[in-house]
Amino acid sequence: MKTDTIAAIATAMTNSGIGIIRISGEEAVEVADKMIRLKSSEKKLADCKSHTIHYGFAVDGDEVIDEVMVLLMLAPKSYTREDTVEIDCHGGTLVMTRILELVIKSGARPAEPGEFTKRAFLNGRIDLAQAESVIDVINAKNDFALKASIDQLQGAISEKIGTIRSEILHEIAFIESAIDDPEHYQLESYGDHLMQIVDEISDKIADLLKNAKNGLILKEGIRTVIVGKPNSGKSSLLNTLVGKDRAIVTDIAGTTRDVIEEQIRLNGISLNVIDTAGIRNTEDIVEKIGVDKAREYVETADLVIYVVDASIPLDEDDKKIIEILKERNTIILLNKSDLTSVITEEEMKGYLNKRILSISAKHRIGIDELENTIEEMFFDGKIQMNEEVYITNARHTASLMEVQSSLKLVKQSILDGMPEDFYSIDLMNAYEELGKIIGESVEDDLVNEIFSKFCMGK
Amino acid sequence: MKTDTIAAIATAMTNSGIGIIRISGEEAVEVADKMIRLKSSEKKLADCKSHTIHYGFAVDGDEVIDEVMVLLMLAPKSYTREDTVEIDCHGGTLVMTRILELVIKSGARPAEPGEFTKRAFLNGRIDLAQAESVIDVINAKNDFALKASIDQLQGAISEKIGTIRSEILHEIAFIESAIDDPEHYQLESYGDHLMQIVDEISDKIADLLKNAKNGLILKEGIRTVIVGKPNSGKSSLLNTLVGKDRAIVTDIAGTTRDVIEEQIRLNGISLNVIDTAGIRNTEDIVEKIGVDKAREYVETADLVIYVVDASIPLDEDDKKIIEILKERNTIILLNKSDLTSVITEEEMKGYLNKRILSISAKHRIGIDELENTIEEMFFDGKIQMNEEVYITNARHTASLMEVQSSLKLVKQSILDGMPEDFYSIDLMNAYEELGKIIGESVEDDLVNEIFSKFCMGK
Repeated sequence: MKTDTIAAIATAMTNSGIGIIRISGEEAVEVADKMIRLKSSEKKLADCKSHTIHYGFAVDGDEVIDEVMVLLMLAPKSYTREDTVEIDCHGGTLVMTRILELVIKSGARPAEPGEFTKRAFLNGRIDLAQAESVIDVINAKNDFALKASIDQLQGAISEKIGTIRSEILHEIAFIESAIDDPEHYQLESYGDHLMQIVDEISDKIADLLKNAKNGLILKEGIRTVIVGKPNSGKSSLLNTLVGKDRAIVTDIAGTTRDVIEEQIRLNGISLNVIDTAGIRNTEDIVEKIGVDKAREYVETADLVIYVVDASIPLDEDDKKIIEILKERNTIILLNKSDLTSVITEEEMKGYLNKRILSISAKHRIGIDELENTIEEMFFDGKIQMNEEVYITNARHTASLMEVQSSLKLVKQSILDGMPEDFYSIDLMNAYEELGKIIGESVEDDLVNEIFSKFCMGK
Repeated sequence: MKTDTIAAIATAMTNSGIGIIRISGEEAVEVADKMIRLKSSEKKLADCKSHTIHYGFAVDGDEVIDEVMVLLMLAPKSYTREDTVEIDCHGGTLVMTRILELVIKSGARPAEPGEFTKRAFLNGRIDLAQAESVIDVINAKNDFALKASIDQLQGAISEKIGTIRSEILHEIAFIESAIDDPEHYQLESYGDHLMQIVDEISDKIADLLKNAKNGLILKEGIRTVIVGKPNSGKSSLLNTLVGKDRAIVTDIAGTTRDVIEEQIRLNGISLNVIDTAGIRNTEDIVEKIGVDKAREYVETADLVIYVVDASIPLDEDDKKIIEILKERNTIILLNKSDLTSVITEEEMKGYLNKRILSISAKHRIGIDELENTIEEMFFDGKIQMNEEVYITNARHTASLMEVQSSLKLVKQSILDGMPEDFYSIDLMNAYEELGKIIGESVEDDLVNEIFSKFCMGK
């Protein structure tokens, strides 16, 4: 089947030094030859060898749009395993757009997000777990996330899953053979043998799942919300943590109108810190957008940092905040420790029994202790990047949990002394569920959904 | 002289499909071989042919940082005319940064902004005018700016300047020869001949200068400020022009706190529209930042759009705005034409005699007329991209004006019957000033200043 030829801008739509327009498909070279004039006079890309670089011009008829370098990578040794042409042009948003328009005019169609990687998967260069890791490599926010996704890209997860699958398949094959040909295969005491195998497999899956929660939080960052009354010092704290003036800090109550999110790298892990408008009742519409969002963020946060202005007494607004935080993973900061405090740690603990630290966001006092406390709370004080395979993908985690359920059913059938063909039904379910992780036996809809999360041009 | 080896990320620091790390200098290949492991086992980049592409891994010792494609372009056929290696990696900000760190660790140093293009200039691949055009190509905001900068990159300006310079040099050489060797060269009636030549050259320069002002405004966009009282509909107008909800529109006076700038492409030209907080006296600090800036922007704007809420009478605040706008290039919009108007065009004209249009920003009434009016005001109703060479660079314009002054002095000397060596001093000044445009006889400081405006990695 002839596949159509797709094209997209593969670099960011921001002005920069170099931009890349990527073309892939059976007519990639033909399309490029329509809109590229190579410097070497009469030569065409169709005459050039694979994996070579050529200097030339992107032209619309006689008009030169840009000077470019053209990369030729012919099937099957390309990203997609299809003929691929990459045009390296000046990295201006307008010039990249003009060249993409030219490529489309010359016969390619605009690619969907992730469509190049999807083709790499559909053409068998990589499996689904590897393909999914591509977007994780790009979005990696810290060294852990990068290492985990590169391992996955290089097939670490696929290899582990593959091994387990072949162990399961071996047992299924044995059971089927024994049922078909009882003369040559003995099922006597097979249940004990299978119980042992299933236990071993189940332990391996449990190991993978054990790391999945930490893996996800390491990869995605700790969703952190800073709450507190207006003027308690939330913006100052955020600025201190981030180290630059991202939020406007002024003396007017309610200055922070939009919710601001900041990525903070902290010893290899990430905090996704969301600064919110002060939590209080307010009649100001703009202010209210912020407060409602704050309540909503608190509900879904991994960690809430409650900033209290310790230089003034607690009031009704604080009581309302305390009520919301009772069931939350919270650190209380008694801020403005440089001023005379009217609230003690003991008093505060009476209201809300959480970790309490005295700090001065403005003077950077107590910030190191805050950082250590966060690390302790989430990783028992130490993060290690070891050689283990980390599952960081929610889809994979769901499949592994499904596998565990099927294995449990197998064990129950053995204990209940059910006929052997009962074992193989649940073993087959486990086998197929594992196949979903690496993209065997997955449906088109799922594949489409996975790649739709990709960025353009990848 | 051995040049050091430089490296930078050449794509934007935003997550995207592909990122490029660029390395240039005598040790580029050696540096890359330290941190790239090619897929083809034992092969090194040092063994590969120029203009070839290789699949491999960026490695930090044993740790794989990313899967990459490596482009090898050896001197002199590279962007810088030096040995160049480009590493195409996944376009994540963290992974790009990690690879750049690896390259630096392997012996390159971080490049200054524009340093690759600076080397292309210093190594004689392109002249200064061509080098300057690179950043214009990248920053091109509309088709005109792109065409003008690509023409410049391809040497259109350099060629024109070169021709004029050789004409001047011819006359200087003749004068010098005649003074040295009066037997063979006749200076009699040379003044008349030179007068004619200088007139011709002066006309050519005048042609270039004539287009320079339009060229600059076409390239940079028309600096447009929208002013008006709170709630007159400034944000609605901006949103209508831009076609998306960039500014938050609410019913609260003074919602627009930060100055928002928007690029609007309008039939091939650009408006740089700045929306400001309402102009009025206010005690609100945050609000005030906006208002002060608004006054400042009005001072430097090419065009001011004054939005008046025609459904309510003019008040003291309007009078203050009118006072500021008297000497400005202004269009008055009587907004909310869908409501009952209490201000007529005649009444408004009595206060401020400018172009007046009735519109409804909310219902997109009168917007086309506004667009046409802006085009008429700036380009007599028509913009044409013809084959002329457009000077769009302020540095070049300044040099050309300097050249005109020198040529004028030459003519004065001829009219005053001064000795011929007087002519050649001013002709030489004109010659050298023209040389500055293409980068001959320019000083290091100027070169450094020019390239410091570049983006990283170019």
